Amino acid sequence: MPVHPLPARDAAADDRLLADFAELSAIGATPAGGVERQAATPEDGATRSWLARWLADRGFTVVADRVGNQFGLLELVPDAPYVLAGSHLDSQPRGGRFDGAYGVLAAAHAADRLRAGLAAAGRTPRYNVAVVNWFNEEGSRFEPSMMGSAVFTGLMPPETALGTTDVAGTTVADALTAIGALGERDVFGAGAPHTVAGYVEIHIEQGRELDKSGTTLGLVHRTWAANKYQISVLGEQAHTGATAIADRRDALYGAALAVVALRDLADRYGEELHTSCGRLTVLPNSPVVVPREVRMHLDLRSPSDALLAEADAALRATFAEIEVKADVRIERHVAHTWTGQDYPPAGVALAREVARDLGVSFMPVQTRAGHDSTNLKNAVPTVMLFIPSVEGISHAEAEFTADADLCRGLDVLTETLARMVEGALDRA
Amino acid sequence: MPVHPLPARDAAADDRLLADFAELSAIGATPAGGVERQAATPEDGATRSWLARWLADRGFTVVADRVGNQFGLLELVPDAPYVLAGSHLDSQPRGGRFDGAYGVLAAAHAADRLRAGLAAAGRTPRYNVAVVNWFNEEGSRFEPSMMGSAVFTGLMPPETALGTTDVAGTTVADALTAIGALGERDVFGAGAPHTVAGYVEIHIEQGRELDKSGTTLGLVHRTWAANKYQISVLGEQAHTGATAIADRRDALYGAALAVVALRDLADRYGEELHTSCGRLTVLPNSPVVVPREVRMHLDLRSPSDALLAEADAALRATFAEIEVKADVRIERHVAHTWTGQDYPPAGVALAREVARDLGVSFMPVQTRAGHDSTNLKNAVPTVMLFIPSVEGISHAEAEFTADADLCRGLDVLTETLARMVEGALDRA
Repeated sequence: MPVHPLPARDAAADDRLLADFAELSAIGATPAGGVERQAATPEDGATRSWLARWLADRGFTVVADRVGNQFGLLELVPDAPYVLAGSHLDSQPRGGRFDGAYGVLAAAHAADRLRAGLAAAGRTPRYNVAVVNWFNEEGSRFEPSMMGSAVFTGLMPPETALGTTDVAGTTVADALTAIGALGERDVFGAGAPHTVAGYVEIHIEQGRELDKSGTTLGLVHRTWAANKYQISVLGEQAHTGATAIADRRDALYGAALAVVALRDLADRYGEELHTSCGRLTVLPNSPVVVPREVRMHLDLRSPSDALLAEADAALRATFAEIEVKADVRIERHVAHTWTGQDYPPAGVALAREVARDLGVSFMPVQTRAGHDSTNLKNAVPTVMLFIPSVEGISHAEAEFTADADLCRGLDVLTETLARMVEGALDRA
Repeated sequence: MPVHPLPARDAAADDRLLADFAELSAIGATPAGGVERQAATPEDGATRSWLARWLADRGFTVVADRVGNQFGLLELVPDAPYVLAGSHLDSQPRGGRFDGAYGVLAAAHAADRLRAGLAAAGRTPRYNVAVVNWFNEEGSRFEPSMMGSAVFTGLMPPETALGTTDVAGTTVADALTAIGALGERDVFGAGAPHTVAGYVEIHIEQGRELDKSGTTLGLVHRTWAANKYQISVLGEQAHTGATAIADRRDALYGAALAVVALRDLADRYGEELHTSCGRLTVLPNSPVVVPREVRMHLDLRSPSDALLAEADAALRATFAEIEVKADVRIERHVAHTWTGQDYPPAGVALAREVARDLGVSFMPVQTRAGHDSTNLKNAVPTVMLFIPSVEGISHAEAEFTADADLCRGLDVLTETLARMVEGALDRA
């Protein structure tokens, strides 16, 4: 166990991080302090270019794979595998500036500190380091979310990702090509030049546990389970003024009953179940036409797989009632689902040691949100770290994390990455 | 009172009407038998061109006014005022092929029959005839509905209409210019070359009274009252997975409660109140974001002004409850409202006489839908005629009226127009 953690915090390093973060946050900035940089938009392209320049200026080799995951390679040990550190630079529409972007920037700074600091501290790397910006973690423009890391870990065929379209019908392949972000081949894995030794990610909590308890670091040990459905409510188009209520098969009335039922379900289970409808599209959406179809995205999350299954069954029963009440048909497709899963205990233990050694307050937390590490943790030794987010606000412009937390998070990430590069998780 | 009604029905005249209607219905045709020709789209432009050619071929002078109302002028008496006959060629998205288009085509055929037939029958015109295609009756692309006739009758300033934008931000002025449909000056009224002596319109019922009772002709004597509101439900953007239910200010939950409340209100009043939400737009509409805002169009209609006022008050109270329950704010704007109004009794009486003289079954009906005649009736002597629509289906591709009803409707329209041209409503 190294006894000399990497460069102790100094004001200059903190200032560099914060200055870079301010520069990065200006790209796609919204008036209320957020950013709008949805996947493969020009704004996403601008952040990628900014990162590429930053990395190249510091001697990293910048390369994208064939679904737009962006890497900055730093070779410390020729031909050795790479420990990846990163998150995502894409955002929600009117999203927060910390979500994802902080994790990528912190990884870049950590890798940069480590290159100089590791040798200076007399520590010996076993692996190389790659900063990673995963493509399309947010899934707002192209569904599903966590797309780049899903392809990277073999959960989604690259062709599926590249052929996915946004509402305007643009494919991922075309959108990535348009911003010059589509690589020609895989960078890691079988048939690719490099292999992966591990993954570490730092992210804002997107919950209020750390903020509430005044704790600096969250050791993520488990994910909530999630079911995401796409639903179509099918009715019949009619005239709003002329058509008798009894004759209507109003798809929007059916959809509204579903949204209300979804909330009722959450209220029934208390804090153990989150239910949401984030996207709802009405056809034809004319002021004087009874809607013929409503397409909805439902999102159910729980720390308990069993409770989620129970909620799923309850929803199914409610939909059958709504079909009768509104005289509509509800078609239901599961779009994306994951069970509650543990993060590798060895990774959690490593992060705990680092936090202790650095004197940073910490606590175990679960993640309700999905992250790229949700995909990576099943493939390679993985560590997931959280820093506080004020009042748990996220996917919103008001999302905020204090400078001190950003800087302390970087310290923990740097030392955790250093120990992974030294092989700390090999023994796991 | 003329004792020789204009050309009695003959098969050739019927065939011409039906052949032309089939040709017109092919423009913007949808797979399920409807049409999609929203105002000032290329498809609307194509129907306008088709009509212009049809009219010009038969000696009508075709001209558009400065908000895109299209006229086919037929001079019978130099310098005399004009009796207008028409409806609208624009449609809803995936709308029916009869709604509006039948009325314009029937007016063109009626005017054409009348030109030859009036003199042949030894009848003397006092007025000229103009076929009219009112711009943007539907209001699906540009709100509000009945826009062209509202400007024509002074209810809306032309600048307001021309500056109205669709969801893509295109103005009416630009859209009309793009299809070559924007005239340079007024055709009728003060400062314009012509004046108006009256207006007659024929339209499918958009209700099931005529179809149910097997009656051919509806004499429209009254409009339902209508309130159309635009509502904004304002909440707060948040993460669907991470944000505790108790912390949410979910605009879509508030909107769903409003849609359900709207239906409950209609159920409470029975057939005397129609309530609808036809358009609902979610912001930002991302699958994993709790919506910050929902914009809705609500539509309340009743034959009773008093009942509509009562429903309006009930809705206001319900919105206040929803604001508390969903922790949202509801902003409410009245967009468009009209009270229940009588059509001119002299016009109803004239249509009744014609129906009797032609041996066509008739009954008085109210209109639940708005029509251009709703605007015209307050300005000039007006007659509004309905023909049956099977099962009252409207604003939908399945909208259907039998050939026999189309042809008998044309006969009634032709003779009514002839009598108006002879001055039958001057005595009113």
